Amino acid sequence: MEDAYRLTVAEASRLIGEGRLTPIRLLESVLGRIEELEPRVEAWVTLDEEGARASAEALTREAEEGDLRSLVHGIPVGVKDIYFTGGLRTTMGSPIYADYVPTFDAETVRLLREAGAVIPGKTETTEFAYADPAPTRNPWNLEHTPGGSSSGSAAAVASGMCPSALGSQTGGSVIRPAAFCGVVGMKPTYDLISREGVYPLSWSLDHVGFFTRTVEDAAIMLGALTGRTFAGEIPSHEMRAPRLGLLRGFFQERAHEAVWGGLEEAVERLRDAGAYVVEAALPDSFGLVLPAHRVIFASETASIHQDLFGARREDFRPLIRGLIASGLLVPASAYLKARRFKGKFAREVGALLRDVDCLLTPASVTPALRGLESTGDASFNSPWSLCGFPSITVPSGLTAEGLPVGLQLVASPYGEGGLLGAAMWCEEVMGFPKDPMDP
Amino acid sequence: MEDAYRLTVAEASRLIGEGRLTPIRLLESVLGRIEELEPRVEAWVTLDEEGARASAEALTREAEEGDLRSLVHGIPVGVKDIYFTGGLRTTMGSPIYADYVPTFDAETVRLLREAGAVIPGKTETTEFAYADPAPTRNPWNLEHTPGGSSSGSAAAVASGMCPSALGSQTGGSVIRPAAFCGVVGMKPTYDLISREGVYPLSWSLDHVGFFTRTVEDAAIMLGALTGRTFAGEIPSHEMRAPRLGLLRGFFQERAHEAVWGGLEEAVERLRDAGAYVVEAALPDSFGLVLPAHRVIFASETASIHQDLFGARREDFRPLIRGLIASGLLVPASAYLKARRFKGKFAREVGALLRDVDCLLTPASVTPALRGLESTGDASFNSPWSLCGFPSITVPSGLTAEGLPVGLQLVASPYGEGGLLGAAMWCEEVMGFPKDPMDP
Repeated sequence: MEDAYRLTVAEASRLIGEGRLTPIRLLESVLGRIEELEPRVEAWVTLDEEGARASAEALTREAEEGDLRSLVHGIPVGVKDIYFTGGLRTTMGSPIYADYVPTFDAETVRLLREAGAVIPGKTETTEFAYADPAPTRNPWNLEHTPGGSSSGSAAAVASGMCPSALGSQTGGSVIRPAAFCGVVGMKPTYDLISREGVYPLSWSLDHVGFFTRTVEDAAIMLGALTGRTFAGEIPSHEMRAPRLGLLRGFFQERAHEAVWGGLEEAVERLRDAGAYVVEAALPDSFGLVLPAHRVIFASETASIHQDLFGARREDFRPLIRGLIASGLLVPASAYLKARRFKGKFAREVGALLRDVDCLLTPASVTPALRGLESTGDASFNSPWSLCGFPSITVPSGLTAEGLPVGLQLVASPYGEGGLLGAAMWCEEVMGFPKDPMDP
Repeated sequence: MEDAYRLTVAEASRLIGEGRLTPIRLLESVLGRIEELEPRVEAWVTLDEEGARASAEALTREAEEGDLRSLVHGIPVGVKDIYFTGGLRTTMGSPIYADYVPTFDAETVRLLREAGAVIPGKTETTEFAYADPAPTRNPWNLEHTPGGSSSGSAAAVASGMCPSALGSQTGGSVIRPAAFCGVVGMKPTYDLISREGVYPLSWSLDHVGFFTRTVEDAAIMLGALTGRTFAGEIPSHEMRAPRLGLLRGFFQERAHEAVWGGLEEAVERLRDAGAYVVEAALPDSFGLVLPAHRVIFASETASIHQDLFGARREDFRPLIRGLIASGLLVPASAYLKARRFKGKFAREVGALLRDVDCLLTPASVTPALRGLESTGDASFNSPWSLCGFPSITVPSGLTAEGLPVGLQLVASPYGEGGLLGAAMWCEEVMGFPKDPMDP
């Protein structure tokens, strides 16, 4: 099965379970795909063929003895290079950590390994997961950014270099690159998944997240990371059509024409398929969301990097340097006001979600921008990173230029089961192609 | 039983249970005591004789029918005037709230009422529970401060105006006034008891606490506030002598001569009685404890009062005005550094507590100061407010001037059972008089 790299997590898992595919054959297919595409896409900082093969061979032996650890037994998972991997270099996308080798795995990495995942290597991240771009390119058009900060993970999943990958989101670093790359990206509820061993950017806003090519695969990943089953909560074909609260206002005003056009078209198709889509009014406090997010973000990043920044300022690239410098000027009273605003905003969004299953917005302000200089605008995602509510993106179509756009769904805290169900329903209606580089 | 006001909570509870005392007779005795002493002590902002009598009469009927709600059934509890009491004025010690009547009870007040406590009124607090003094005087010597910020609660319990009272501690506002007034003061683990409906001063440091005349009573109060039983965890006479870690260094250097002398003498008596007292080394980070505490305190107070302060600056007294003004100048990076230091310090103190049951220090830097201008120095208490570990003070003796001094014991988070046990053991060895105003 040479093109096993094309399989989704669920498909590969089923075949491994049936003895028709082995972890090592799946890994070899993935490594072949990486060899073929990596020179163009540049999604990986570090590959660990040796470690991955050893682990895939052990998992193959276990599978042959009928011993399957979980649904991710033998599944390759790319790991963003801010997640600590014991014995495997972890650079944070920074020259300061260019040779840093952690002695332990991040808790998420430990859980995935324990569940049988195979880690082919570490994926490219913007510097410290902020905005200074990685070298990664968008598989749909190599002249365009894949988005950031989880650039390598999004591009690797989109191009078949691995069926799933870990990312992280502080502003829009999972949802935006997923949308730019035409894959599913999910950011579960704040603190649902451990951030231990993930280099922090802004601890009040940092979320663990992941990329897959289908919503079903996102449910499997979430299950592996939480030890719970989400797949069972997702009825497929016969499931109830979701009630969605469409947010206009700020989103409609700010969205690129192609993005908003795509959303309107998607809404029409969802309604035709039976979805109940109402317009939800943005809470009054929405106008303060982005400033509050920015104040918390800058203050905490500045606090984290303060000492290193004093000693090695020239080793920080311009955007994060600006963030730290501005964060050092924030008064504590402004930070604390923003922190208290966070709670207020969460209560108001919670109230919006009483009448609908999910809120619906475009996943990004624009399609993937041309050039690698900017990873794009996070302002459609940051509100949900601020309040910590779970969000997911599902690809909804292609622009006239052939770039993906996506829907973003947001649910109540710990409402991941319903969120995945609604996302799967939308995914079926949208019927998006899965393989950008193999049309 | 005219002098029922002299009874401890445990004694009164037992007599009420045996039908030999009723809640209304206990209340009348307490109100008589208040009438007698309040003009000199000034412990109460607002008395609610009518509400208290109605509640004591209802509880008396219940008791007569054999229906006892808990160990605090019918027990008068003074409530510091920053705890919201529905329908009963709550001033925060500030002219801004001079006529403020909350519509609901603080969660702690609700729990106490539900458990059968009777609330005779609201006790004096320094302005917003900071350092601008209340009019309250020390029952041991009316020319001296009772300490703050829970001035009225400490003085009321010490002088028999109620057997127990609620206080709060952000720096040393329970332990210090308890020590100054020769009563037991306890501050349980941070967040063990709800702060809902308590006007915040600095939410990362604010603790609910209470005053009683014995450690047994503290266990009863803690039980009423948590719904758990602590009394059972306290063996009395035959209990194992505690292992105590005496902290010198900073404490010895800073302590007033009479305080340190009293401590050394107390240690000798504890050792003679069989306690195992070792010297515990202060962690390296101890030098940063007070600055970190101050930075968090000032920043959060400034954040809470920012809007009100802008509008009504002249209605804030000088000390809290200075705290807010200085808090508004703190950079967020300093605040966040202090917040992260808090975690580090807690880990280091936790390590110290591996080898002993409790840490032991004097409860205050000085005995109660002469004059009402200053409520005293919190620096022996603030470290434990910073790390959030439970602490308690037990009176240990009188200075040559006849002012009380106390021991402070500190235990591991959620180690309240052991802390109370050790404190009860020390209390028995110390044998302190209970009635300052009735020698």
